[in-house]
Amino acid sequence: MTTVHTHDALMNDAQQADDASPLRGTRELFDLPDDVIYLDGNSLGALPRAVPPVVDDVLHRQWGERLIRSWNEADWWGAQTRVGDRVGRLVGAAPGQVVVTDSTSVNLFKAVIGAGRLRPGRTVVLTDPDSFPTDLYMTESAAALAGLQVRRVHPREAVAAIRELGDDLALASYSSVDYRTGELWDLRAITAVAHEVGALACWDLCHSAGVVEVDLDEGGADLAIGCGYKYLNGGPGAPAFLYVAARHQDDFDQPLTGWQGHAHPFAMRPDYEPAPGITRARVGTPPLLSVLALEAALTAYDGLSPADVRAASLSVTGAFMGALDSLGVDLPLATPREPERRGSQVSLRHPEAFAVVQALIARGVIGDFREPDIIRLGFAPLYVTHVDAVRAAVHVKEVLDRREFERPKFAQRGAVT
Amino acid sequence: MTTVHTHDALMNDAQQADDASPLRGTRELFDLPDDVIYLDGNSLGALPRAVPPVVDDVLHRQWGERLIRSWNEADWWGAQTRVGDRVGRLVGAAPGQVVVTDSTSVNLFKAVIGAGRLRPGRTVVLTDPDSFPTDLYMTESAAALAGLQVRRVHPREAVAAIRELGDDLALASYSSVDYRTGELWDLRAITAVAHEVGALACWDLCHSAGVVEVDLDEGGADLAIGCGYKYLNGGPGAPAFLYVAARHQDDFDQPLTGWQGHAHPFAMRPDYEPAPGITRARVGTPPLLSVLALEAALTAYDGLSPADVRAASLSVTGAFMGALDSLGVDLPLATPREPERRGSQVSLRHPEAFAVVQALIARGVIGDFREPDIIRLGFAPLYVTHVDAVRAAVHVKEVLDRREFERPKFAQRGAVT
Repeated sequence: MTTVHTHDALMNDAQQADDASPLRGTRELFDLPDDVIYLDGNSLGALPRAVPPVVDDVLHRQWGERLIRSWNEADWWGAQTRVGDRVGRLVGAAPGQVVVTDSTSVNLFKAVIGAGRLRPGRTVVLTDPDSFPTDLYMTESAAALAGLQVRRVHPREAVAAIRELGDDLALASYSSVDYRTGELWDLRAITAVAHEVGALACWDLCHSAGVVEVDLDEGGADLAIGCGYKYLNGGPGAPAFLYVAARHQDDFDQPLTGWQGHAHPFAMRPDYEPAPGITRARVGTPPLLSVLALEAALTAYDGLSPADVRAASLSVTGAFMGALDSLGVDLPLATPREPERRGSQVSLRHPEAFAVVQALIARGVIGDFREPDIIRLGFAPLYVTHVDAVRAAVHVKEVLDRREFERPKFAQRGAVT
Repeated sequence: MTTVHTHDALMNDAQQADDASPLRGTRELFDLPDDVIYLDGNSLGALPRAVPPVVDDVLHRQWGERLIRSWNEADWWGAQTRVGDRVGRLVGAAPGQVVVTDSTSVNLFKAVIGAGRLRPGRTVVLTDPDSFPTDLYMTESAAALAGLQVRRVHPREAVAAIRELGDDLALASYSSVDYRTGELWDLRAITAVAHEVGALACWDLCHSAGVVEVDLDEGGADLAIGCGYKYLNGGPGAPAFLYVAARHQDDFDQPLTGWQGHAHPFAMRPDYEPAPGITRARVGTPPLLSVLALEAALTAYDGLSPADVRAASLSVTGAFMGALDSLGVDLPLATPREPERRGSQVSLRHPEAFAVVQALIARGVIGDFREPDIIRLGFAPLYVTHVDAVRAAVHVKEVLDRREFERPKFAQRGAVT
């Protein structure tokens, strides 16, 4: 049983860690309900306080008052690359290589077909069988259209598979962090071997952008995609991003040749001529309310280094796991304990994981369930503190000790993303 | 020269027409600056007053307070088809056939490849050489991937071309209204002949949805695409829509196989199984701020029949052309005069069209320029009145009479969409 002593000691340590954190005070940049410990920022990031005033300005002044003139005056035209550069700073990309556009799925489609065209004659795309499913679906569809074949090889076996495939390989496409288990893969190693055989690498940063130190440029990534609505806090369905390394941009021939990717979009020419640089990865007119909300959201990262964010993330998730240990919660961890092997989430396995998650939500601890048996808890270090982590661990213990997950109301399933 | 008598008579008639209009009072549903006559709703619709309160609720309550729970509670999950049905009511589509998703460009890509797969063995896609360029670019790119060839045939020659192509034709893909000239094409006739030879028809409704009476179901359209930010007033870059006729949905095999188009998105299965119905045309997580802004915007159409909107549109554009005539403005019209041959815009030709547009904007009459010589004026009948139309005609006359377009400051070009 938990003792008062254990509780007090854990809370003391947590408070000290919060006070000493380089992210001290960033929680105040978010508008979170007081009665919630929000551990689902890996599905939908919390509302940054900077967003509503910007959206208000976009609605009333930029759209309502200035109307079409805002394309120039407010530089709507440049928003996708401007916000892209902001994302780039968080993922180790120098300016001019990231564009905010479309959804992650659509960007992966561009990346796979674009990669095939950068490596003509090669026939294989390698990807993780445990990828977030949309990655598998889009990769298969894009590959089929491009005359490529997809092989599903676990990241642990990727290096060997790449060596074996040699110059058959066009692209190795892997997620940086497993969306279910939170395991962090060494994409630099996979990329280095892909380059040895002359192939390309695409990194999916959905569960790492904004929490893990990602070095796209230094790590040699050729392409990368990622999501705007998880740790980047851009709001529900915020646009995604696409990175194309500068060295590939002149030859990046992506299939979604919309007018906003054209070199001379207002010349209204009958044939497509891709714009120079990353702009060619744009497609149609972007949903500006959502693009500009994401731009405002990213100001929460102003003044923070990716290294500090990563350190805080590991410290908070470490505090959560440590508290579970101290409290005697012995659920199996799906997430590796080693700092270098995990992202910013802690996933626990339980045969009644769905009901456990519902019982936690009823207590104000919001996480999510993933098939088949995963309690998935994401720790966004900008607004989840060490104290939150310890409180969450206590809630987990109480839900399990009191068998709250056996209450019938927690067993009913609905759509949760 | 204009006489006071002409002015007064025109204004009197305009006022009477406004008083008698079935759209009387709808202008109050929009937040437009007092000093502007806004004739660019065919590029970016005006701000409906219903939008800001909804966006505010989405930001603060749905996102900020309820967080991830809004996927169920606020039915974010169903937003794309719910708003799709709302669009459907404006374009003659019974429920369950329209989804709001992605951009027009991306939706056309799905439509072209999907059409090719619905008509295997056929090799040709027919489209208008004067299409909005993104239609040409996307059609070419999609066709190349699908092993189809694009032939560019003017709508006037489309029926003959279809008969000649016979069972080589997979898809006839045409815009309902020419974005430059405002000419309205008879897509029902093109569709009927396409069906005679066993092919499909895709209608681009970017410049007709919300102003022209479109009968997708009755007209036999197989596929259609359109834009949310023009006459539908969804805001800058609002998501687009895609229509797939119910009879094709079971076999509609579109290439952007994202998880939100899956039959069991939360089962996280490794292989793609398209959802029943129009849901399979969804791709990734949609930009919900923009989707829900569009939903609110569409309430401006509540209680209005497409026939009434069309009648008002023709009446207002007719008043504008009539006023130009009465005022003795003799610029060539790019738009046909016959009501059955025009959409909701009036395009005038002038060798210095760019500068004329800038001079008009300086007077508060906002229209836009299109290469090479087009002054494009869109009349959104929900917020452009007969009185506005007459006033705009007077401004055109004054800009020409006073040769304001010769002022150097109006000749500088910038990006305007």
